[in-house]
Amino acid sequence: MSDNKKAVEDVLDKLVQSYSGPEEINNLETYALPNRRAIIEAFGHIQHLLFLGYFTTGHLSANKLRESLAEHMVPATEILSEQIHRANNWKNSHLDDKSKPRCNVVALQLLSQLPEIRSKLNDDIVAAFRNDPAAESVEEVVFSYPGIIAITAYRVAHVLYHLGVPMLPRILTEYAHGKTGIDIHPGAKIGDRFFIDHGTSTVIGSTCVIGNDVKLYQGVTLGALSIRGDVSRKRGDVVQRHPTLEDHVTVYAGTTILGGDTVIGEGATIGGNVWITKSVEPGKKVFYRVNGTQT
Amino acid sequence: MSDNKKAVEDVLDKLVQSYSGPEEINNLETYALPNRRAIIEAFGHIQHLLFLGYFTTGHLSANKLRESLAEHMVPATEILSEQIHRANNWKNSHLDDKSKPRCNVVALQLLSQLPEIRSKLNDDIVAAFRNDPAAESVEEVVFSYPGIIAITAYRVAHVLYHLGVPMLPRILTEYAHGKTGIDIHPGAKIGDRFFIDHGTSTVIGSTCVIGNDVKLYQGVTLGALSIRGDVSRKRGDVVQRHPTLEDHVTVYAGTTILGGDTVIGEGATIGGNVWITKSVEPGKKVFYRVNGTQT
Amino acid sequence: MSDNKKAVEDVLDKLVQSYSGPEEINNLETYALPNRRAIIEAFGHIQHLLFLGYFTTGHLSANKLRESLAEHMVPATEILSEQIHRANNWKNSHLDDKSKPRCNVVALQLLSQLPEIRSKLNDDIVAAFRNDPAAESVEEVVFSYPGIIAITAYRVAHVLYHLGVPMLPRILTEYAHGKTGIDIHPGAKIGDRFFIDHGTSTVIGSTCVIGNDVKLYQGVTLGALSIRGDVSRKRGDVVQRHPTLEDHVTVYAGTTILGGDTVIGEGATIGGNVWITKSVEPGKKVFYRVNGTQT
Repeated sequence: MSDNKKAVEDVLDKLVQSYSGPEEINNLETYALPNRRAIIEAFGHIQHLLFLGYFTTGHLSANKLRESLAEHMVPATEILSEQIHRANNWKNSHLDDKSKPRCNVVALQLLSQLPEIRSKLNDDIVAAFRNDPAAESVEEVVFSYPGIIAITAYRVAHVLYHLGVPMLPRILTEYAHGKTGIDIHPGAKIGDRFFIDHGTSTVIGSTCVIGNDVKLYQGVTLGALSIRGDVSRKRGDVVQRHPTLEDHVTVYAGTTILGGDTVIGEGATIGGNVWITKSVEPGKKVFYRVNGTQT
Repeated sequence: MSDNKKAVEDVLDKLVQSYSGPEEINNLETYALPNRRAIIEAFGHIQHLLFLGYFTTGHLSANKLRESLAEHMVPATEILSEQIHRANNWKNSHLDDKSKPRCNVVALQLLSQLPEIRSKLNDDIVAAFRNDPAAESVEEVVFSYPGIIAITAYRVAHVLYHLGVPMLPRILTEYAHGKTGIDIHPGAKIGDRFFIDHGTSTVIGSTCVIGNDVKLYQGVTLGALSIRGDVSRKRGDVVQRHPTLEDHVTVYAGTTILGGDTVIGEGATIGGNVWITKSVEPGKKVFYRVNGTQT
Repeated sequence: MSDNKKAVEDVLDKLVQSYSGPEEINNLETYALPNRRAIIEAFGHIQHLLFLGYFTTGHLSANKLRESLAEHMVPATEILSEQIHRANNWKNSHLDDKSKPRCNVVALQLLSQLPEIRSKLNDDIVAAFRNDPAAESVEEVVFSYPGIIAITAYRVAHVLYHLGVPMLPRILTEYAHGKTGIDIHPGAKIGDRFFIDHGTSTVIGSTCVIGNDVKLYQGVTLGALSIRGDVSRKRGDVVQRHPTLEDHVTVYAGTTILGGDTVIGEGATIGGNVWITKSVEPGKKVFYRVNGTQT
């Protein structure tokens, strides 16, 4: 055996050996977990179903509509059913012994809610167009605004989350996070006509409650004030660890708002780079001293 | 019909029905809009034309140069012509009835400016190498600095923007935004030897005016102070809503500078995490009190 | 010759001409540089070697383990050897005349350290699960947390960096930066059980020293206070330009900590949006006045 071949075999031996310990990442049964790439593929079909004209380049017409939608609905249903099955199987074998859920039914429940999601997304898109003077058309907003990708993934993931599907919702929103820098947890509650401008580095925590007509800019954190550990993991009795933003609130770039008891009142405006851990009354404007200290 | 097949048909019916309302996203004629993937493909060819040695792995030599460039120029011209045609057609049918522009000519006008863009990008790259002590070589800067991707997309999009091409410029800069977290609007005016270090979450608004030898770090916002709505949408009479940074200005991480009347004077240094809505005199240094309040 | 063909030829002439000047980006020998796509492909194989169960979808079992690992180790070794060879050749021809390093040996040295890297990553993953109440399982952390991608790329790149391989380490960490918005320089020293939550726009400079059990949130900058230029480029005599964070330090969103003399003492907590350029004593909590100024 050549020196090089022996060196390769030695490294392989060490690697094999490293899988024999009790570490969590050594679990080989994880091959049966949901597959990230398949979930993203299903989301691609859902984007076609939501915005058919924007994702298709061939000629479309009203009488071809049903056929064109079916082309995406069939694979979306199949992939989602399989991935929901993987997610449920994995969770059940680890946590409890409930019978295998009817995964195809759950996939169809998601898809049957797409019309409502479409209506909400249309309102989000029109709100972006109306709020941003730099937007030249609704079409430009759909094609190029990262906030729309993030909100689309969130609105789909939020439905899956409330259907009780494990893992898939977070994989979807983290996919959008990677694409856009906007991190919205699937558990957050978000109202209508929601607008995130630019959005890179904006984070919306899992127990946030956001009203209607709210605008956020880039670098805004809606986070937890401290870590309360296992308490908040209990289902059905979730502690609100993240803030509430009432209707018509605007938060400028780089501001951090923390805590489940923190309520930003209706119509309040929060300037950029502010650190907030207490409630703000409705209609107030909150800023730091302008321009720092000049020397 | 099986229960499952019926359920699928029911969902399809609801989806088809959801396209019958007046919502903006129901427009099926959007299939004729520019195609994002094609535009990104054209940008890939432009990157080869700009940095041939860096994007090619096979042997290159001076006498093969013209041939190697032609391999990218021909598809770049074809794709751009088609996408400019789609963008103009769409805009004209919606806004006015001007005759169809000669799209091939516009594509060639962009490509004929690549030598000037190359010269500007070379200066940007050398500025990054000189300003960052962590940079080990010019080659490392070209290969791995996200600021270079963002500035390249901006410099190309800015030319398209001034050639009057709709939609394509923003799709290009938002593509770079997704890749790098750096969001530069194609309309911004940016001088020579521009350096953005790290850059994630940095935003440069559409009416910014930036001088020569300016350095920005990550999380810097050059934004609008308030939304003035339709006023600023008028072409030819654009109101400056975003700040001016004169020559040799440096802005550290996480700072927000807002407003069209805000001018950061020549040679000023703005520290990190500052909120600025008024002008700063030339040569000044602006910081917040260091280290906050300790408890 | 048609007008259009002539126009194309004219543009090509200008482009060819633009490559004849002294500008750095005109170097055609750069075709022999390392190839970014190949390096990312090798990193994909390394991710399989590190987390086999999570990246494979087919059935895995203990007796197939060696074979499954070999499937990724062989191409990882081949690609890395070639790319290390390219990187060394390029550096040697530009900087000095040392003999060609044995690149295959260097690639195997990296791979032989994967078991230690696996052990560290397992600790990082368990720390993320324990610190984040929104995390529902270790598996969810591996699949969806961007911090894990960034730390994985960093831990691999850090080993390559100390093996003296040029360019490849930075290409790896900038790849992760693009995917996650988290920018960790390969040269930084980072201890055990390191947790970055959300992480977009977080930057860790090349001479940072970070202890054990440190937690960072999004938008945190650990940067240099000023640029000292060529001094810090000297190998073997590197000046520390970036801060030190001792064990059990937590830094909340949007905070900037600068300077090589700045030490954040053991167990200190730094609130969000703070600007720090001086040391903080162990155990201290540092915040700005809460809620700014209300008007």
